[in-house]
Amino acid sequence: MTATSSTTQNASAAAPDLGPRAFRTGRHGDTITVGIVGATGYAGGELIRLLLGHPNVRLAGLHGRNRENQPIAASHPSLGATSLVIDQAIPEADAIFTALPHGVAAGMAADLVARGSALLDIGPDFRLHDPADYPRWYKFDHPAPELLAQAVYGLPELHRDEMRAAVDKEATIIGLAGCYPTATILTLAPLARAGLIGDLAVDAKSGVSGAGREPKPDLLFSEVNENVKAYGLFNHRHTAEMEQELQQQGERGALASRDANPGVATVDFLPHLIPMTRGILASCHVRPTRPVSQAELDALYDEAYRDEPFVQVVADPPSTKHVFGSNLCRICVKVDPRSGRILALGVIDNLVKGAAGQAVQALNVLFGLPETTGLGQYPIAP
Amino acid sequence: MTATSSTTQNASAAAPDLGPRAFRTGRHGDTITVGIVGATGYAGGELIRLLLGHPNVRLAGLHGRNRENQPIAASHPSLGATSLVIDQAIPEADAIFTALPHGVAAGMAADLVARGSALLDIGPDFRLHDPADYPRWYKFDHPAPELLAQAVYGLPELHRDEMRAAVDKEATIIGLAGCYPTATILTLAPLARAGLIGDLAVDAKSGVSGAGREPKPDLLFSEVNENVKAYGLFNHRHTAEMEQELQQQGERGALASRDANPGVATVDFLPHLIPMTRGILASCHVRPTRPVSQAELDALYDEAYRDEPFVQVVADPPSTKHVFGSNLCRICVKVDPRSGRILALGVIDNLVKGAAGQAVQALNVLFGLPETTGLGQYPIAP
Amino acid sequence: MTATSSTTQNASAAAPDLGPRAFRTGRHGDTITVGIVGATGYAGGELIRLLLGHPNVRLAGLHGRNRENQPIAASHPSLGATSLVIDQAIPEADAIFTALPHGVAAGMAADLVARGSALLDIGPDFRLHDPADYPRWYKFDHPAPELLAQAVYGLPELHRDEMRAAVDKEATIIGLAGCYPTATILTLAPLARAGLIGDLAVDAKSGVSGAGREPKPDLLFSEVNENVKAYGLFNHRHTAEMEQELQQQGERGALASRDANPGVATVDFLPHLIPMTRGILASCHVRPTRPVSQAELDALYDEAYRDEPFVQVVADPPSTKHVFGSNLCRICVKVDPRSGRILALGVIDNLVKGAAGQAVQALNVLFGLPETTGLGQYPIAP
Amino acid sequence: MTATSSTTQNASAAAPDLGPRAFRTGRHGDTITVGIVGATGYAGGELIRLLLGHPNVRLAGLHGRNRENQPIAASHPSLGATSLVIDQAIPEADAIFTALPHGVAAGMAADLVARGSALLDIGPDFRLHDPADYPRWYKFDHPAPELLAQAVYGLPELHRDEMRAAVDKEATIIGLAGCYPTATILTLAPLARAGLIGDLAVDAKSGVSGAGREPKPDLLFSEVNENVKAYGLFNHRHTAEMEQELQQQGERGALASRDANPGVATVDFLPHLIPMTRGILASCHVRPTRPVSQAELDALYDEAYRDEPFVQVVADPPSTKHVFGSNLCRICVKVDPRSGRILALGVIDNLVKGAAGQAVQALNVLFGLPETTGLGQYPIAP
Repeated sequence: MTATSSTTQNASAAAPDLGPRAFRTGRHGDTITVGIVGATGYAGGELIRLLLGHPNVRLAGLHGRNRENQPIAASHPSLGATSLVIDQAIPEADAIFTALPHGVAAGMAADLVARGSALLDIGPDFRLHDPADYPRWYKFDHPAPELLAQAVYGLPELHRDEMRAAVDKEATIIGLAGCYPTATILTLAPLARAGLIGDLAVDAKSGVSGAGREPKPDLLFSEVNENVKAYGLFNHRHTAEMEQELQQQGERGALASRDANPGVATVDFLPHLIPMTRGILASCHVRPTRPVSQAELDALYDEAYRDEPFVQVVADPPSTKHVFGSNLCRICVKVDPRSGRILALGVIDNLVKGAAGQAVQALNVLFGLPETTGLGQYPIAP
Repeated sequence: MTATSSTTQNASAAAPDLGPRAFRTGRHGDTITVGIVGATGYAGGELIRLLLGHPNVRLAGLHGRNRENQPIAASHPSLGATSLVIDQAIPEADAIFTALPHGVAAGMAADLVARGSALLDIGPDFRLHDPADYPRWYKFDHPAPELLAQAVYGLPELHRDEMRAAVDKEATIIGLAGCYPTATILTLAPLARAGLIGDLAVDAKSGVSGAGREPKPDLLFSEVNENVKAYGLFNHRHTAEMEQELQQQGERGALASRDANPGVATVDFLPHLIPMTRGILASCHVRPTRPVSQAELDALYDEAYRDEPFVQVVADPPSTKHVFGSNLCRICVKVDPRSGRILALGVIDNLVKGAAGQAVQALNVLFGLPETTGLGQYPIAP
Repeated sequence: MTATSSTTQNASAAAPDLGPRAFRTGRHGDTITVGIVGATGYAGGELIRLLLGHPNVRLAGLHGRNRENQPIAASHPSLGATSLVIDQAIPEADAIFTALPHGVAAGMAADLVARGSALLDIGPDFRLHDPADYPRWYKFDHPAPELLAQAVYGLPELHRDEMRAAVDKEATIIGLAGCYPTATILTLAPLARAGLIGDLAVDAKSGVSGAGREPKPDLLFSEVNENVKAYGLFNHRHTAEMEQELQQQGERGALASRDANPGVATVDFLPHLIPMTRGILASCHVRPTRPVSQAELDALYDEAYRDEPFVQVVADPPSTKHVFGSNLCRICVKVDPRSGRILALGVIDNLVKGAAGQAVQALNVLFGLPETTGLGQYPIAP
Repeated sequence: MTATSSTTQNASAAAPDLGPRAFRTGRHGDTITVGIVGATGYAGGELIRLLLGHPNVRLAGLHGRNRENQPIAASHPSLGATSLVIDQAIPEADAIFTALPHGVAAGMAADLVARGSALLDIGPDFRLHDPADYPRWYKFDHPAPELLAQAVYGLPELHRDEMRAAVDKEATIIGLAGCYPTATILTLAPLARAGLIGDLAVDAKSGVSGAGREPKPDLLFSEVNENVKAYGLFNHRHTAEMEQELQQQGERGALASRDANPGVATVDFLPHLIPMTRGILASCHVRPTRPVSQAELDALYDEAYRDEPFVQVVADPPSTKHVFGSNLCRICVKVDPRSGRILALGVIDNLVKGAAGQAVQALNVLFGLPETTGLGQYPIAP
């Protein structure tokens, strides 16, 4: 992929020593080699943008269906300053990011981890722990349930220790959290752990880039502009992730507090498409299991996130523009003094914290780097 | 306001015979004289656009603060084809529409109705029945509680008969429904009447025109574009209307069915500003009071709206663009087979069905015209 | 297409008497039957919207490839209130509108005019008088040059008399003006006739709907939003129309004034895609052939357009939003006192005056109706 | 401005040694202290964003009218991660950036440079060399013509050597180029130097952020969205800069080539407001002074820009989105084989290369750092 073919040869030569364990033993010096499969989509492009600015990463290979030998700038004109070219083969590297249609990464995972590479899947193939959830929500049978059993759900704020431990597993696989789930789970996790979620409606608004780059009639500018609509009623696939993770947070909290309430059973999730490119706002309407004060909520969220570099708990309703282009998640939680209900609002940039940035954050965890490495960009406004 | 001063003189001469009762007795021929106070804002402009196409209306006067004697086209360049000019005095006419900051119409109402004019207030001054709601929600004491007692809530689909009866009252005053309440109440009324609303969160998305035309930093293009945010947490003034009307629908239904459940006590209402100019989508998340089937919902809504010219019940989630520029409200109601929850989605154009169009519809009711007169515009798409 | 099949039968029975000549002899009463071929695109949808409000038209048939027997509302959800259905056959009617990819209408024209129908082509197949221009600009050989010779260029403001005369031709064919040419030619025609255009650059900005409804990567919301670009450098097909018409206006003016300057030879035309759905602004930079005063320009444009119902000459730079949803063209012409250059700015709604509205205006001309019939809509703002 | 007041005291103590000369002698170590006057506007916010990521800069003070002692995050919520506070006094620092209404920076310049600080003015007060241009174009008399005489026009690609030399002047003042002029001058400079510009129309399109943050009716979302318009006909102030610089480039080229043609006399400049937040596209329509081939153009631009880190000459028409959030300028130049005209297209992000990024680039030049320091951000897309 790089301009000089020698680079790829070097990467190949290093194959036996690939992966986070090899890196941590110092055999690589300071450089992590990275490959991207599915480099021509929006998440792929965002990943390249971020990794080009990462001080410890060398892009060792890009892969994109039917674009072999094309400059990557043909797919991503904004990256015109690079001379990177799309490879024919799946690259060999310490870490492989996959940004592919569902089912595809699962099919190639065994080969990738056999080389020692860590696999960080931006798609959904390694997010759900129960193999039965794949036919149920995604309409395919998971081809590698034994690998699924080793995968870690890729939301570093909740699964940092498991990610670190994954380095010593046979297969190091991260099923990076989806965009809606990232916003929703971070926004609700403290409530879930405290057993506070009685009834829950998650009403989410997303920019259009989350729908990907394939041209479909509904994604045309003329259809999306000056328009808003709900979609995916009752069956959006991200619901499964939210329920899995909120349930687990609830159990974790119940265990810790010996509380009998393990949290929500179902998530009433309703996504909307709004006329913007980037950003997700998850508006979570919660009927609490018991009366709660604002002070209690403030304390819960402060405790949960005060040491998190990418989560900002704020006093006013956040705008997606407050996090545009950054890996930040901004959260505001309020109790309604009139009704006793809780409103929890969270925003992210769906392509950064909801995809490529989260992937880089997970890479940093796996390879023992400070989590903010290469992710220090401030949001762009206006 | 009209180019010839004689017109105004004629209107003045007709003063004693003003108003809907006079019109219905045939003293006017086919023409209703209409004045607009607050003609320079967005709702005022939309009203002029609609009334210029109304076959039975003559615009007898426009009023706008600090713009006296200016052509209306200076305020609304899109209306450049008219030669209408802003008057110095409040016009005399069969019907006066007021589109003013809250508290202003209430102060001038007594004078207007004394002339015989019907008063159709697009602002909030005559929407809430309980005078105590004004200091509570709007922070002012209502200056004319005796007129408030005669006012009819201006949502023709729910209060058509009261509107007609208002013609024979001492004062004919319509407090036209707000934009969010129009979308929300129409979307939920059948559920409220059936006593089905157990728990309710209304998550609404609005275009920016609803915030009016006064320049404020938060309404600048650079702030709104590529952005979404919630606002008005727990205290949006439209909440009061929604609770008043849904409560009333619930009581009406309870009375009819001898059911003990009069409906919701509080509405968890959360509005959002999204980057578009026109349109409101109200996404209503309902936990029903009892299990309900899709067939039952379909029957409820069919019965409620099959004869309504402006309400379309559809099978797929509606887009605001499906009603852009029209007086339509489009509604979709579904029960989630997994959770048993109900999702009710409603869209309107906030400046038409949510303001000026509804006002014209109410005018038609008061003056005994077919309700669709002057409101036959199809939505504009894309 | 209509809900009852009998309608179509009636239309068929009327076939021998189809067309504008038949209508003008009074054999139809007040109703013109109309068919649309290519009803599922944006121009088709706009045409239906306008014709549903036209008092003298009955939609006798809709045709759309691969959508036979579908409700038209499946293609145009905003038209959900109609029960129109897409026909299998090309409809028989007094007038057939074609809104089709280039080359298709030319292929079916002979059949259509043989029935007596007037053909109003929204596509480019009958706009260029010289058959050689089709292979040159459109890369196809015109299949019916003998029909092309009878076609009238469909810009009523410039070719009204020819349109009227076309009713008595063997074939009544209108090649409706393209969207960019409509804005540009109307903006420049008075200068062209006066022989004032020395050097000319037309820098045009268009909303995205002009690119049609076929999903292409470049038309995705995420690509168009927050973006502007030029395209079609030096070879946009509409250039041919502009040169043909401006040349003709120049010749007409030279003939009238015995002036030797017949106008521009080439148009430097540069279109841009901007992030909006509807609207075209043509900014025409003119180096005049001789010094000219503002008063002379004002007089030229006043004379040209004072009696035109759809052309408004204004003193300030017009916005596309001033004409949104209407059949208006708004023009502002200024001379730069510093440089002596002329700036001529014109705006239209590309789907109305630039397509469907212009088509209805031409229909009115052909059938002897007031030109504004069914086109009285005021622009929608904001 | 920093959280601890001691910081400001330290800065004060360092005052005698302030400025680029002091820095270059090594007295500062690696850190340049920087102050921003006018920190609460869009350009100010962008400057903070960039400087927070600059490895050699310490923000020593922020100033903003009527916001003293407020956290900067109250003005720029996207910068919520910083604890910077707005100072009461104008900060003392090696470099002061001013982003102020015209006339204000000129008034405070004498004081600032007296301390040794370099002054980098993002406003227009030091761009025009001829004092008479200020009353003419900006309607104020320049209060410090003696400082104006020492100021350097701040477009590093054209005035790098003068900037370096300015360090040794009594007053080091950079009048940073305006946003439209940056795009236009970079796009045309090679043609101007080659004496190729015969006739010139610059048709520019800008996002709304260039109009600043003061709430004005015309900048409301509802007015700008779904709209395009020209403004500033014949009198936009940036015209003066363009003429000054293109004239100078022409003279420079004429001098070098002994060519008699010193370039354009007047620029026909027409700016447009389009519905996006960031970005400028300058479409330059050029009638060349003599026939020119594409190969000659390619060679001219390659020679001019091949070593420039921020200017990319490309083969296809550039989009503003290709440079969003970056300090890049992307240019495409083509000759029309049919007409012989030249079309030169240039895009920038108006808040980066058109304001804050250019300011940082100039800072790097003044302080002897690599020009790309702190400016390595890739554009964000989509």
